[in-house]
Amino acid sequence: MSKYPKITLVGAGPGDADLITLKGIKALQTADVVLYDALVNEELLDFAKNAEKIYVGKRSGDHSYSQDAVNKLLVDYAINYGHVVRLKGGDPFVFGRGYEELDYAAAHNIPAQVIPGISSSISVPGLQHIPVTHRGLSESFWVVTGTTSNGNISNDLYEAARSRATVVVLMGLNKLAEIIEIFKKEDKNKLPVAVIQNGSTPQEKLAIGVVDNIVEIVKENNLTSPAIIILGEVVALHPLFQSRRKTHDVVTGK
Amino acid sequence: MSKYPKITLVGAGPGDADLITLKGIKALQTADVVLYDALVNEELLDFAKNAEKIYVGKRSGDHSYSQDAVNKLLVDYAINYGHVVRLKGGDPFVFGRGYEELDYAAAHNIPAQVIPGISSSISVPGLQHIPVTHRGLSESFWVVTGTTSNGNISNDLYEAARSRATVVVLMGLNKLAEIIEIFKKEDKNKLPVAVIQNGSTPQEKLAIGVVDNIVEIVKENNLTSPAIIILGEVVALHPLFQSRRKTHDVVTGK
Repeated sequence: MSKYPKITLVGAGPGDADLITLKGIKALQTADVVLYDALVNEELLDFAKNAEKIYVGKRSGDHSYSQDAVNKLLVDYAINYGHVVRLKGGDPFVFGRGYEELDYAAAHNIPAQVIPGISSSISVPGLQHIPVTHRGLSESFWVVTGTTSNGNISNDLYEAARSRATVVVLMGLNKLAEIIEIFKKEDKNKLPVAVIQNGSTPQEKLAIGVVDNIVEIVKENNLTSPAIIILGEVVALHPLFQSRRKTHDVVTGK
Repeated sequence: MSKYPKITLVGAGPGDADLITLKGIKALQTADVVLYDALVNEELLDFAKNAEKIYVGKRSGDHSYSQDAVNKLLVDYAINYGHVVRLKGGDPFVFGRGYEELDYAAAHNIPAQVIPGISSSISVPGLQHIPVTHRGLSESFWVVTGTTSNGNISNDLYEAARSRATVVVLMGLNKLAEIIEIFKKEDKNKLPVAVIQNGSTPQEKLAIGVVDNIVEIVKENNLTSPAIIILGEVVALHPLFQSRRKTHDVVTGK
């Protein structure tokens, strides 16, 4: 091949295909190969007219491709085909293991660049009109993973539960009950909580309540992964929270 | 006018015009009026071929338009012209006061929607290949404002300095020395720090060091606002940090 090897990490955004950046689209248009994840909207592949498309998805609990295998594919395809776009859900650096891919590319002397994506941590609450920051309610937000490399909740969540920050937990729905217990121990029983599944897509589902009843509400509404959890006073700005408060629904969970 | 009033809050991203979303572009293309901020790349206005463009910029310390005035303009233009796009730097909800605008629109019965933007908090470090999270180094990141409504550093920063999170401070460069003192009190003298001015644009400037010397390095390199500050072990992944560490430069600041 006469093409120079090159790798571009592209953030695909939270799910809605229109939430990719213009820069991401331009990268896809010049791709020779696209390696894409499970959480990427496949409509985006249409921008890569001339590329081979390879699915390297991993869903939690289903490690069909290990990170090592993905790293190796990235470099092999770049050497043999030229421009490889690595299309990743959300932003490549928000629990996306993007740096491991950059590092592997650098170790093989393949130039790599990064095109940021819309992270679900900010955008999925935002699309529901829940602002991660708001004057008088929140001067900061703290984004934590619900699933660390050893499968446990991050220890950082214990500190986050103590803080005044809006707390956003990604990949945490499987451990919701455990996460909620941490907030109860901090006497935050009445803290507003939202859980949003498949944010930004037609399959979006929302559960809204407080620490004391959100586990029950999520169960009643059958929310499943992928989902994000938002804990903080800003959640009370959502119209559904306001209307439930009127009927005491938020507190009783009925 | 026969047009229905409508307001769309659009995140313009960190500065590079190509970092707007496709959805943001589509909103601009149907805009009758665009109200835009100081930190928005004006090239984006070209997408709004048929719109009146109105600058409502506020830079810190220069309140030419108050938030109340912007709210009122949004609603007045929507009633008189139809579709108003409110184009805001970064993401509308990351210290962007977007919710205040939504709330005002709702109070006047004008339908409003939100199109998220690429927040500088994640993307500006990311474009420098500094990941806000990375296995073994950081399981969370905490985004804090350096300038609250009363002009002070957020109290949340005292807690953030104690945490293991990657800490990202927006609008904090004017208070860098004060912020750094907070980290020194936590004995984090050797914690890696990066300051990035005008991230994602041709005017981008980077200063990299540790808590003990970053104030001096920023001064030597004449960095000014707008800039973001990143404090955390992940900053040590930057090649400049690695090369400086070899020459002990990071520690001496020379």
